[in-house]
Amino acid sequence: MSPLAAPLERLIGELAKLPGVGRKTAQRFVFHLLKGSPSDLDALVAALRDLHDRVRACSVCFNLAEEELCPICADPRREKTIVCVVEDAANVLAMERTNAFRGVYHVLGGALSPLRDLGPDDLKIRELILRVERDGVREVILATSPNVEGEATAVYLARLLKPLNISTTRLAVGLPAGADLEFTDDVTIQRALENRRDY
Amino acid sequence: MSPLAAPLERLIGELAKLPGVGRKTAQRFVFHLLKGSPSDLDALVAALRDLHDRVRACSVCFNLAEEELCPICADPRREKTIVCVVEDAANVLAMERTNAFRGVYHVLGGALSPLRDLGPDDLKIRELILRVERDGVREVILATSPNVEGEATAVYLARLLKPLNISTTRLAVGLPAGADLEFTDDVTIQRALENRRDY
Repeated sequence: MSPLAAPLERLIGELAKLPGVGRKTAQRFVFHLLKGSPSDLDALVAALRDLHDRVRACSVCFNLAEEELCPICADPRREKTIVCVVEDAANVLAMERTNAFRGVYHVLGGALSPLRDLGPDDLKIRELILRVERDGVREVILATSPNVEGEATAVYLARLLKPLNISTTRLAVGLPAGADLEFTDDVTIQRALENRRDY
Repeated sequence: MSPLAAPLERLIGELAKLPGVGRKTAQRFVFHLLKGSPSDLDALVAALRDLHDRVRACSVCFNLAEEELCPICADPRREKTIVCVVEDAANVLAMERTNAFRGVYHVLGGALSPLRDLGPDDLKIRELILRVERDGVREVILATSPNVEGEATAVYLARLLKPLNISTTRLAVGLPAGADLEFTDDVTIQRALENRRDY
């Protein structure tokens, strides 16, 4: 029998489903919440409920949005003719953290994966082609991950985009900044060698 | 401007208040919840709401409880005449993990601390004395933490319990199991030396 009251056990069980959270961390969260003010707990509950009710896909890029458009598509300062194609909304955040990209995004909703039964019709690919034609997009940056599924998706998209006569680019693959050559995997070194540039 | 929709920003802010959770971990939680099923999110919201509405203090030991009694006080197999005094409910769990204690608990709700303006009247000390007299308690184990405040609390309680003519014990202080003598602090070694036992 658990020494914990049933509602605590339930909450610990739910919190322990979060990525990287085990029972002990979940317990720590619960005791923290118990010690905190009721208004903090209310704010957390309200914010979680809003995740259901107030988050939807941006009608242009399928990033997460509260309104019709996501904050990036709604920003007049963003260059709307340069579109960075990513697999999911978490990748938008990763790109945005760099502060190096002033264009807009297109969130596919995954990558092509025969193993997980994800085909072109399961991703927002048709919407991308329509968007490129409609909005006069000048450049599409393929920023799917450099793994098997991401590469396959990028190759597939590049072929589809070719007839549209726009610039199609792909994020560079090479040594990560700050890496040690000794501990870098073979495929990455091979790609870095293939993609070497004048210095 | 944040590239994230406002409801997501709010939820990340709330989750980042949890102990050991920063913005990046909170983001990971949010994307995990977005990918998960709505029923999982509902279960989490319900469990959090219950923390408010369905958790109270056990009327005997002040551990966290759903009913009048906590699961430990309600268990007929627990030895009710041996009471382990701890600072808070998290410490009950720590003791229970050992599976080495078959008595019951008394949760003080903290330790004496002049710095934090916590005096005897702020802790469940009067309730402990009443309970010892009323329930025929045979032994009180003082399991407050072996730091300044916990020690002060233990000394204070031992003095109060003395006239009641029951056995009062204190958790042993010494080297933690698996420790390396070289890296153990001076005070712990000194205490381990003072408390050395026949071998």
